[in-house]
Amino acid sequence: MSKRGKFAFSWFSMKTERFKLLPAFSRIMCMSDLTGKSIIGFETGAAGDISIFGVNPATGESLEPGYVAASEAELNRAVDLAVDAFEVFGSKSGAVRAEFLRCVASKIESIGDDLAECATKETGLPEGRIRMETGRTCGQLRLFASVAEEGSWVNARIDHADPSREPVPKPDVRSMERPLGPVAVFCASNFPLAFSVAGGDTASAFAAGCPVIVKAHQSHPGTAELVGQAVVEAVRECCLPEGTFSLLYGPGSEVGSALVQHSAIKAAGFTGSRAGGQALMKLAAERPEPIPFYAEMSSINPVFILPGALAERAESIAKGLHGSMTLGMGQFCTNPGLTILDGSLNIEPFLARLAELVGGSSGGTMLNSGIGAAYDSGVSLLGGNDAVETLALGQAGDGVCQAGAALFRTSADAFLGQKKLAAELFGPSTLLVTHDSKDKMLALAKSFEGQLTATIHGTEADLEANRELLSILETKAGRVLINGFPTGVEVCHAMVHGGPFPATSDGRSTSVGTRAIHRFTRGVCYQDFPDPLLPAELQEANPQGIRRLVDGNFA
Amino acid sequence: MSKRGKFAFSWFSMKTERFKLLPAFSRIMCMSDLTGKSIIGFETGAAGDISIFGVNPATGESLEPGYVAASEAELNRAVDLAVDAFEVFGSKSGAVRAEFLRCVASKIESIGDDLAECATKETGLPEGRIRMETGRTCGQLRLFASVAEEGSWVNARIDHADPSREPVPKPDVRSMERPLGPVAVFCASNFPLAFSVAGGDTASAFAAGCPVIVKAHQSHPGTAELVGQAVVEAVRECCLPEGTFSLLYGPGSEVGSALVQHSAIKAAGFTGSRAGGQALMKLAAERPEPIPFYAEMSSINPVFILPGALAERAESIAKGLHGSMTLGMGQFCTNPGLTILDGSLNIEPFLARLAELVGGSSGGTMLNSGIGAAYDSGVSLLGGNDAVETLALGQAGDGVCQAGAALFRTSADAFLGQKKLAAELFGPSTLLVTHDSKDKMLALAKSFEGQLTATIHGTEADLEANRELLSILETKAGRVLINGFPTGVEVCHAMVHGGPFPATSDGRSTSVGTRAIHRFTRGVCYQDFPDPLLPAELQEANPQGIRRLVDGNFA
Repeated sequence: MSKRGKFAFSWFSMKTERFKLLPAFSRIMCMSDLTGKSIIGFETGAAGDISIFGVNPATGESLEPGYVAASEAELNRAVDLAVDAFEVFGSKSGAVRAEFLRCVASKIESIGDDLAECATKETGLPEGRIRMETGRTCGQLRLFASVAEEGSWVNARIDHADPSREPVPKPDVRSMERPLGPVAVFCASNFPLAFSVAGGDTASAFAAGCPVIVKAHQSHPGTAELVGQAVVEAVRECCLPEGTFSLLYGPGSEVGSALVQHSAIKAAGFTGSRAGGQALMKLAAERPEPIPFYAEMSSINPVFILPGALAERAESIAKGLHGSMTLGMGQFCTNPGLTILDGSLNIEPFLARLAELVGGSSGGTMLNSGIGAAYDSGVSLLGGNDAVETLALGQAGDGVCQAGAALFRTSADAFLGQKKLAAELFGPSTLLVTHDSKDKMLALAKSFEGQLTATIHGTEADLEANRELLSILETKAGRVLINGFPTGVEVCHAMVHGGPFPATSDGRSTSVGTRAIHRFTRGVCYQDFPDPLLPAELQEANPQGIRRLVDGNFA
Repeated sequence: MSKRGKFAFSWFSMKTERFKLLPAFSRIMCMSDLTGKSIIGFETGAAGDISIFGVNPATGESLEPGYVAASEAELNRAVDLAVDAFEVFGSKSGAVRAEFLRCVASKIESIGDDLAECATKETGLPEGRIRMETGRTCGQLRLFASVAEEGSWVNARIDHADPSREPVPKPDVRSMERPLGPVAVFCASNFPLAFSVAGGDTASAFAAGCPVIVKAHQSHPGTAELVGQAVVEAVRECCLPEGTFSLLYGPGSEVGSALVQHSAIKAAGFTGSRAGGQALMKLAAERPEPIPFYAEMSSINPVFILPGALAERAESIAKGLHGSMTLGMGQFCTNPGLTILDGSLNIEPFLARLAELVGGSSGGTMLNSGIGAAYDSGVSLLGGNDAVETLALGQAGDGVCQAGAALFRTSADAFLGQKKLAAELFGPSTLLVTHDSKDKMLALAKSFEGQLTATIHGTEADLEANRELLSILETKAGRVLINGFPTGVEVCHAMVHGGPFPATSDGRSTSVGTRAIHRFTRGVCYQDFPDPLLPAELQEANPQGIRRLVDGNFA
């Protein structure tokens, strides 16, 4: 662990940003400073009974400190602060929000060693992965900073007045995206940084102008607090209102449910299980005032291997598929859980090679005991299914939370007949489904629920001969890949990490990439406003120089 | 009624569009051709018991023909056809969709006389209004045609590959908006054309590439059939698939509920009552696969009159408010049902003038007996409320469905204390709420549920002194107006006819203006696609010449 002192970042600030000296109490957390409490604006939660412990999944040991669940009063206080903060933060310029997002990124980078130490202990993920995810998280914050700063994302539109129009004069009408209000964000177990406290949901909500209240995941409470304190530092350093950010702990679903049901929360983002996501979706829809609820939940990410591609590059497909299905112990939303190919061809060499790779896979530690147990149970169920053949099982280390890769095979008819075979099995496995005709292959594609991704491996001739498959998959998935593998979600402007239900609760949204900002906004229209009262983005002179749709033309 | 013969339009087509001669059975409907049946693609519904009659609200007489409710089999057939149609229509170019939308507009214009005759009988609305609404409906179809044709609405984004990036190569990632699938549209009673069969919901869904199944409103079944046949003519003329459009009748909520619950329907648009909208919202959210449901429901459209404006132009405000509240017998979603002013000022001359105008208003026919009865009942309830003073009642004609304008007054405290005073009263009335301080005025503003519109009348000094009011209203309404009146929703690019719940079910949406197209789409991402397999909008050479975000820059 880094021995950086408490004022290390302040010292850096003094050198480069002297005008923003932090107050003395403002300093960077390190692991030994963890409080085990919720963060309510600039304060920590009150004392209480400790009910949440991080657990090192590799050893089963409980990690210190234990965490205290947020009380109802603390939750309400966090929301009240967020409501107040919204009045200020929601009206800040894109430049201010960008500065804040970049500051959050810098703060997180400055505790990279602590994060690596803490998150590896809490999640069993290797240090390299944690450091790469930290980099991705900071890159994501900076990408949203650039979007907020550039400003055109607000989709500004101006239709000028025409007082002489008959039979009625035409008013001056202008509109742009405005932030919804306080947003609740739920951390994900499988991305302790990129989909957690300062992950994509938080970054996009901040960029949009929404205060954020995060519900920490109990799988990595210390990592959450480290990042949470970094965000608070940035809130202070950027002189933003206290309620811009809070972080709440809770052992079960109580705190999260209360958050989604709070009348002042105007939207929520979630990444996690289908059961958890659907329970919260229901609460969001049943509120007196329903709110947008963005859950990214469940996907088996089918991979179709077409004949020409199999004939041309069986080895590279086998290696690529094996790499994708076992990456991070298969604990990615985009893990290729289903592989479809034509069993009437000579696929045995491919299957043998893939089985060899899977069988030779070294095992690894799963994120937590619940996920580990669910994977074991799913593997046993598949293995015990009469319609399913176990082609290979990789090695799993000894210990409480160890798992090994698994490769199964079934027929298209069995898959179409048994709905349970299409359920997500979260972990390093894939189910090969073999069909014997193009019609059966298309029937498989049509049978899918909504997916985050769908992939085709094919030669040019394969693809030309299977345009119908492409058309079907386009209606089933948020992202369609050709000759690639679905893991590794690029954080960029064009990404769609979404997809029809149950991949997400709202197939119109994405939780990765800059389109994600639009989840937390709505269009507001200003009619016949005096120019100085308009938001800068809509003022006639276009002081922010953003791209706008003026009288139907881009200007 | 026009005596135009059955082949009149075909004749016109022969002169100007010889290459698109309609088959002999394809012809323009006129009123005497009404079948009283649902339209299922290119066929009419089967015979059955007649259960729906249009009623002339001014006379109470039932109108012929009576209409047969769609059977379950017919509904399923319409949806099956729509599913098939989506595979073709959803992939048509913007140019084809534009041609279709323009064709629909032409067909509707060609039956303008029939529509005027039929709709006036069915709705009690005057002919001038029906003709203006027909024009608006056709203008709206053409506006969406221009959007579909221009093409940039798809929000195309391209992030190029970087194979040399470390630690992993960057893939080629492209995305754009794609249509959701078959859409259900519910007609509104108060706009027999602009928010009905070929209104804004249908126009925007078609422009997006979605087949539409319309549930007719039983208040104007004949108008619906006339327009429905015009749409079918356009589907045929443009050689689009049969299932691109269907029109279903049903007497109660059964057909509409079944439509929203059908697994192949992927979104729905609704304009109507809060009760009806919420019932359908619930069904949409509780489906095994929840779908976006866009209901525009309830709004009281507060109008704030600030002191300077009142002092400067009481007469014009009184006249403008009276005109807006009584326009179309107050049967607009944006009717100003609430007017707020400072009772500690000398407001009596203004009140007296407004009362004089309201008292002198001539009455009129309400859209149907249900709406007429609800208005009467609401007026009686307000008049009988001890906290409410009746300032003026306009004249109502004799007859079954006649109503008169009404002006009421209450105090801010009473309004804040009685939730029922904030309920929408659909008809030509406004409730004046007088307060005695800026704080009380802001408390009123903060108390509002979500609204379609909020309006402020103020001088420059008024507005400067009341920026906080503006900020609050911006969070409450889809459209904020200054020194205007909320009725008269401009159909343009910048319009937002939406607003937080319960103004709409989804405050991120608008049902008027070109932004409405995005209700029926979702982003789809294409990774590492060979260029020829990409939609034209995403191909490298940009063959459609649309605006795109390429590597983060607009190009």
